[in-house]
Amino acid sequence: MNMVVVMEKNASNEEIEQVQARLRQAGFKIHLSRGVERTIIGAIGDRSQVDLGFLEALPGVEKVVPVMKPFKLTSREFKSDDTVVTVRDRKIGDGGVQIIAGPCAVESREKYLEVAMLVKEAGATMLRGGAFKPRTSPYSFQGLEEEGLKILAEARELTGLPVVTEVMDQRSVELVARYADVLQIGARNMQNFFLLREVGQVDKPVVLKRGPSATLEEWIMAAEYIVSSGNPQVIMCERGIRTFENYTRNTLDLSAIPALKRLTHLPVIVDPSHGTGKWRLVEPMALAAVVAGCDGLMIEVHQNPAEALSDGPQSLTPQNFAHLMTRLDKLLQNGRV
Amino acid sequence: MNMVVVMEKNASNEEIEQVQARLRQAGFKIHLSRGVERTIIGAIGDRSQVDLGFLEALPGVEKVVPVMKPFKLTSREFKSDDTVVTVRDRKIGDGGVQIIAGPCAVESREKYLEVAMLVKEAGATMLRGGAFKPRTSPYSFQGLEEEGLKILAEARELTGLPVVTEVMDQRSVELVARYADVLQIGARNMQNFFLLREVGQVDKPVVLKRGPSATLEEWIMAAEYIVSSGNPQVIMCERGIRTFENYTRNTLDLSAIPALKRLTHLPVIVDPSHGTGKWRLVEPMALAAVVAGCDGLMIEVHQNPAEALSDGPQSLTPQNFAHLMTRLDKLLQNGRV
Amino acid sequence: MNMVVVMEKNASNEEIEQVQARLRQAGFKIHLSRGVERTIIGAIGDRSQVDLGFLEALPGVEKVVPVMKPFKLTSREFKSDDTVVTVRDRKIGDGGVQIIAGPCAVESREKYLEVAMLVKEAGATMLRGGAFKPRTSPYSFQGLEEEGLKILAEARELTGLPVVTEVMDQRSVELVARYADVLQIGARNMQNFFLLREVGQVDKPVVLKRGPSATLEEWIMAAEYIVSSGNPQVIMCERGIRTFENYTRNTLDLSAIPALKRLTHLPVIVDPSHGTGKWRLVEPMALAAVVAGCDGLMIEVHQNPAEALSDGPQSLTPQNFAHLMTRLDKLLQNGRV
Amino acid sequence: MNMVVVMEKNASNEEIEQVQARLRQAGFKIHLSRGVERTIIGAIGDRSQVDLGFLEALPGVEKVVPVMKPFKLTSREFKSDDTVVTVRDRKIGDGGVQIIAGPCAVESREKYLEVAMLVKEAGATMLRGGAFKPRTSPYSFQGLEEEGLKILAEARELTGLPVVTEVMDQRSVELVARYADVLQIGARNMQNFFLLREVGQVDKPVVLKRGPSATLEEWIMAAEYIVSSGNPQVIMCERGIRTFENYTRNTLDLSAIPALKRLTHLPVIVDPSHGTGKWRLVEPMALAAVVAGCDGLMIEVHQNPAEALSDGPQSLTPQNFAHLMTRLDKLLQNGRV
Repeated sequence: MNMVVVMEKNASNEEIEQVQARLRQAGFKIHLSRGVERTIIGAIGDRSQVDLGFLEALPGVEKVVPVMKPFKLTSREFKSDDTVVTVRDRKIGDGGVQIIAGPCAVESREKYLEVAMLVKEAGATMLRGGAFKPRTSPYSFQGLEEEGLKILAEARELTGLPVVTEVMDQRSVELVARYADVLQIGARNMQNFFLLREVGQVDKPVVLKRGPSATLEEWIMAAEYIVSSGNPQVIMCERGIRTFENYTRNTLDLSAIPALKRLTHLPVIVDPSHGTGKWRLVEPMALAAVVAGCDGLMIEVHQNPAEALSDGPQSLTPQNFAHLMTRLDKLLQNGRV
Repeated sequence: MNMVVVMEKNASNEEIEQVQARLRQAGFKIHLSRGVERTIIGAIGDRSQVDLGFLEALPGVEKVVPVMKPFKLTSREFKSDDTVVTVRDRKIGDGGVQIIAGPCAVESREKYLEVAMLVKEAGATMLRGGAFKPRTSPYSFQGLEEEGLKILAEARELTGLPVVTEVMDQRSVELVARYADVLQIGARNMQNFFLLREVGQVDKPVVLKRGPSATLEEWIMAAEYIVSSGNPQVIMCERGIRTFENYTRNTLDLSAIPALKRLTHLPVIVDPSHGTGKWRLVEPMALAAVVAGCDGLMIEVHQNPAEALSDGPQSLTPQNFAHLMTRLDKLLQNGRV
Repeated sequence: MNMVVVMEKNASNEEIEQVQARLRQAGFKIHLSRGVERTIIGAIGDRSQVDLGFLEALPGVEKVVPVMKPFKLTSREFKSDDTVVTVRDRKIGDGGVQIIAGPCAVESREKYLEVAMLVKEAGATMLRGGAFKPRTSPYSFQGLEEEGLKILAEARELTGLPVVTEVMDQRSVELVARYADVLQIGARNMQNFFLLREVGQVDKPVVLKRGPSATLEEWIMAAEYIVSSGNPQVIMCERGIRTFENYTRNTLDLSAIPALKRLTHLPVIVDPSHGTGKWRLVEPMALAAVVAGCDGLMIEVHQNPAEALSDGPQSLTPQNFAHLMTRLDKLLQNGRV
Repeated sequence: MNMVVVMEKNASNEEIEQVQARLRQAGFKIHLSRGVERTIIGAIGDRSQVDLGFLEALPGVEKVVPVMKPFKLTSREFKSDDTVVTVRDRKIGDGGVQIIAGPCAVESREKYLEVAMLVKEAGATMLRGGAFKPRTSPYSFQGLEEEGLKILAEARELTGLPVVTEVMDQRSVELVARYADVLQIGARNMQNFFLLREVGQVDKPVVLKRGPSATLEEWIMAAEYIVSSGNPQVIMCERGIRTFENYTRNTLDLSAIPALKRLTHLPVIVDPSHGTGKWRLVEPMALAAVVAGCDGLMIEVHQNPAEALSDGPQSLTPQNFAHLMTRLDKLLQNGRV
């Protein structure tokens, strides 16, 4: 059954029949239950194919209770084995832990190539870095744009590590896909459906960050947009949600890892840098995320956080990143617990 | 003073000097206060022109406390008299109440033209209706697109009322601006900075809806993006915020009306349809919004809400809309209280 | 039907039968629906009398969806006509608007008696003032306690107006009830079930403030505690909920007024002082609340807000309160719209 | 400096002087900074001893920005070494991991003694179980009360493990303290200041659960209430906060562990059972919490979760608990990473 329609206490027979008629018309089978206080109509069919908002507007309807999840292609029920996303020679979702590291923004060629080598030496398996950085203030640094993408590609040549970078608008999808190995959809764009459809038509893996106020269901529905547009290579990235807490920048929801593993077959990575906003919290949360079962980490690293053009307070120095990698190796050395 | 930098209890003199040096370099004047427990550095300058995130990453810094608002062109301090936005022969922000009415989505030519005439007769002063409707589910109705825009234009000819419609991606800005009198930025796009900059370059008024989790400051910063890109004709639209309450779709924040009136000079309208999600709550909240000082209302009206392809439960019938307009007239007849 | 139990996709027959057995044992009648993808069990009975949390722990159960509201005595369905609460010669809930005014805390006899006379002259119909004021900091002013209650009683003699005051712990219920006409349960105590049961055994009206993060359903359940303990004289008081907005102290949810009027028969009053935390927003929100249909207002007034020991920023001066009352009279002069 | 008072743009000299006078009167030293756009007044003194809410009500004041934390005795600055709380022969906060296990509620003597032995054998070091269980519905099971306390005491004799149980109202503090080794303050009582003061006068350790919407600062302030009343043996317990996510019962905030470790010297434990509300998420989150640095875990265990009178869905069976303990041992065997 996909949904249950609860009729008002004094709904008339005509109203009850109208609801049934509309549901049948939308392709649903009906189960009618007349109780002492309420009549309930159960509907069985493919909820993912119809928009059922109209039901609540029908006279006599008190409440529509969805029963099954609204997503399909991305659900664990639809596909029970884990999706493994391949990025060049790396695999995300195969039981290992990929480490995506680098600065928030690509600031200059020299600095980026240097930090790329440093994170590689410390054990990073992929590179990150933003070329487009529009932010809450129109007066802030906005990114190097295509110049930044070229630097990323050069860093890939230099290090042999694949490159993840954010694409922020449909017009740039083709451009970014030309340079990057993995396209990232930022948290604020999680429900930018035009952009989701666009990356759904590209043959590159997509990291989909969770929106700051998104529920797991809304987040998986955003992945459904991409997958249903033709691109099944989606990697979910938990990066913290907005709560009343203000000591941390966001509240990193590590329970999303095992929860997503039940709800969907897609791989899950974690970004403790944005998730906490404070570099001192990055290491403990990164290790905790791995123990909780994530498939990868995304870590901000900057040679000199105090000089970073963005996100300095949450960036690790290369030394601190190396320290994290050492603890991580120790944690993983006997295999995951 | 624009901000106060609080140093850690045991910050060294070198650390204190480094912070001062960086602030001076960014164009700020410095006020140093050495207390028994803490040293505090006050900085005076133009915070809107620099990104100061780096400060929190400097060694010895405990906290950076912003003191002045980060927005400028949109602030009441910058321009003390109310901005009045002109839409054809209508004015928003001049003390009157504009009534923007119509269905959530343009569903067909006949239905739209009919409801346009009905809301006009009841007293609406502008028309609304969506041509692009991508939604949380990729399987839902997605709108008539350009066909819908043409219908809107025809309705304007028929009724003489200006037309407000949403633009959802940069690529469509030019197209939408060709047909519409007012461009609307939806709640989910409030921080789509690419889109904000694009409508900032168009010579049409923009209705900027509040993001579901946005603070007033973040919302005004989004307006600042548009205004600083060259378009001062911004109308703020309160449409409810996300809270733990689930009886209503959102929580309509009417205190945003008098609050915005103090913080900014821009006009403020209210959408009680999305703000509550329940048509029975639309009328009391619409009247309350007017008493609280708003410059206009945006109301969803559909001939047959139970047949609406979207937002049926929150749409008024033309009769219910006429009822609201009668009460509103009575409320306004002696002028605003 | 009270609830719907959705079984997991591959639930066994034994599991389905166990759920039915447990529901029957708890006094429910069963409706079984076997669908292609799911089996659903509907249960009809008196959900308010049993705790059904165990259901989600039964093997094979995916989700339990409550269908009917969990409250009963307080519901509009149980009692369709409005409850009118009588406080001495005043009535709350009879269509009029009661105005409860006074300072946050009783600070001294002279000051309290003076402000009581001032608000009476301006049109207040009841007095407010706190005698117990423990606050987030253990180092703040904690109230005059019984001495404060005596001053409130004296103010009642002087003005003839009934007195509302907060009771914060079970041990003081008897004491407060000896002096006050109406007992107030503060927002932070909304789910202090010991205290709710205690005031449920007192024969005095109770103002029940909404908890800062409470949904309407949780709030009404708290009222159900009081009513089911024997005291039907409950007045709901909306005072703002916690949201991400920080310009205001809370977000005043005026849609709670018409929503509660549908869900319950209890009267509803509004506290725009705590609801906004800023005195300049109190007047517009008070007027808006009345238009939205509330039965009363609770307004903080202090002779000299800058000297107030608590809540100064949200207190009106007597002059500002008189200004509000004048606008309110004008608004109400032709009856409610 | 304790706070910064920002004056309005056109504040008069008289207004600026009045603020300074009031601050001096409250025992603060003053630093005045006159900027081009703003005058700022810094104040140095002991903010914890005065309530400064009045400042925002003074004419000419735009904003009061607190600079230092409002808590003192509980702060890491006040006492830099970790507090170790002793419970009989156990220590919480000494670098080890205490495991507090047992059912949500004590349901009967036989069942409780049985599960107590089972969790002991699996490795639990302390017992938990509730004797008072008032809940959101007045019609639910409310606990065995004193009878339950006696059963807890008997379980302690039987197992040799100390006992943690909740106290819900001041009147029962003495009673509960007679039987229990550790008093627990529940999440909903985190700001019940009367209760906090009462347990502050008892010579037993107190587990203080985080309120569902509490910030870290509010939570530590609640601990400050207890400590400043005379009882320094406070153990902080993270148990999840309320967010928009509804797949989990709460969102467990593991970043609170390293954050609290910086802000305060008190030990921190984690309750992944309430924190997630789903038993399948308990094990990964428990292990993650340990890696993130907590001093203990509080785990709900029930012989037959489907029969539990409360919190069944989040309870582990004894077998699942033993599984968790095995993984935990493996994780800790080489010492914490």
